[in-house]
Amino acid sequence: MRRRTGTTPCLATVLVGDDPASVTYVRMKRNRCAQAGIDSRHVPLPSSITTDRLVEVIVSLSSDPKVHGILLQHPVGPHLDERAAFEAIAPQKDVDGVTGHSFAAMAFGRPGFVSCTPGGILRLLDEYQVDLTGRHAVVVGRSAILGRPAGMLLLARDATVTYCHSRTVGLSAITRGADVLVAAVGRPGFITGSDVKPGAVVVDAGYHPGGVGDVDVASVRDRAGLITPVPGGVGPMTIAVLLAQTVQAAARQLGVD
Amino acid sequence: MRRRTGTTPCLATVLVGDDPASVTYVRMKRNRCAQAGIDSRHVPLPSSITTDRLVEVIVSLSSDPKVHGILLQHPVGPHLDERAAFEAIAPQKDVDGVTGHSFAAMAFGRPGFVSCTPGGILRLLDEYQVDLTGRHAVVVGRSAILGRPAGMLLLARDATVTYCHSRTVGLSAITRGADVLVAAVGRPGFITGSDVKPGAVVVDAGYHPGGVGDVDVASVRDRAGLITPVPGGVGPMTIAVLLAQTVQAAARQLGVD
Repeated sequence: MRRRTGTTPCLATVLVGDDPASVTYVRMKRNRCAQAGIDSRHVPLPSSITTDRLVEVIVSLSSDPKVHGILLQHPVGPHLDERAAFEAIAPQKDVDGVTGHSFAAMAFGRPGFVSCTPGGILRLLDEYQVDLTGRHAVVVGRSAILGRPAGMLLLARDATVTYCHSRTVGLSAITRGADVLVAAVGRPGFITGSDVKPGAVVVDAGYHPGGVGDVDVASVRDRAGLITPVPGGVGPMTIAVLLAQTVQAAARQLGVD
Repeated sequence: MRRRTGTTPCLATVLVGDDPASVTYVRMKRNRCAQAGIDSRHVPLPSSITTDRLVEVIVSLSSDPKVHGILLQHPVGPHLDERAAFEAIAPQKDVDGVTGHSFAAMAFGRPGFVSCTPGGILRLLDEYQVDLTGRHAVVVGRSAILGRPAGMLLLARDATVTYCHSRTVGLSAITRGADVLVAAVGRPGFITGSDVKPGAVVVDAGYHPGGVGDVDVASVRDRAGLITPVPGGVGPMTIAVLLAQTVQAAARQLGVD
């Protein structure tokens, strides 16, 4: 990249407040950028910031030609309109895949950036040659940046897709029908052995203190055909997609795509 | 509306080619506009039009202050990039709910227009007080303007949602688990009695020559708890939502929302 353009890709990392997990995630992402030869510009903001001011900061980064990608670390805090802040990210800089523009692109199979965790999950499944066509994929969790886009990406790959969530009745019977089960619940050890069909591919998109995921590994490990580890597994893939998309964004903005 | 603003809402109807079904649909929509006191501006285009030219026409309508809503009749023909044409519709004039902007708004529960057929389905379900929370809704079909947004709207209403489609393996076993079954396949009489759980709510979003839907009424009628008729049912609701959203769009553009 540098050789071709004289420019180093730059990711702006926006962090609101000082939640320890968020601080760690942003540090990990910036360290990985540095290892990959990507610059990062850290933008720490006080937790007392208003939505209007946060949107202003992101609009400013969106129009800054030195910034090629923008990551707003989720969650930003309950008093802020996170969706409004996400939507202030210019589509061509949405390397974390959190805007409605990127979501629709994923759903319609159009050019655009993918949400990093769902995108990382698809890369893992591809790497292990998991055939998705016609298979029943069950996504447990429906957040805007994880569960919902994961389902759309799986649907675009011709899986039959079921979204389950906190209001689902008879969850275990549904997950037991899954050929591919994506746990994106946000509750440690939520998926247990009796929720899993023998031989199923289990993707654990959770991460909790102590390095625990959304899947109870002890009871699931021997039933699953394949299972992603925590730590490892989905987490590093999320960062890898973020980095790859930052380089793509820079290349497109520099016209060397 | 006219009394408050001196302006009559105006829907632009864009029709490419002369497919008889499309001609009929557009005529019906314009007739209903007239009945409701909404102006329509018909824009017939030759089937030989290029995507670039079609996009130009829509961009022009998007910036015309006399036009409050834009309907591009689907399908536009296989040689055209329909998605590119849809995306040329300004979000505030997307009264048919076909843009990625509208899709993301539906998925994230944000302000915006809904796709008319899915929006009409939800209104029908509400009118008949069908409780969706935690119920299993199965959508058969995944088109960008019908199946996919229908699933997103049902998910936003706390249903457990499964998307089935042409590549789904074991379709009938899945549809038999549905409390609410949405047939959006585009194949006459595709859903038969053995696909339906006794007591299920069956929504037929199909329409084929001779007034036949996607559901085989003879075998399904006695099993379903509720079933939408064809003709009638979803079709008129689709147009009702189009008209309501055209008035909403005009009100917003005129600042009397």
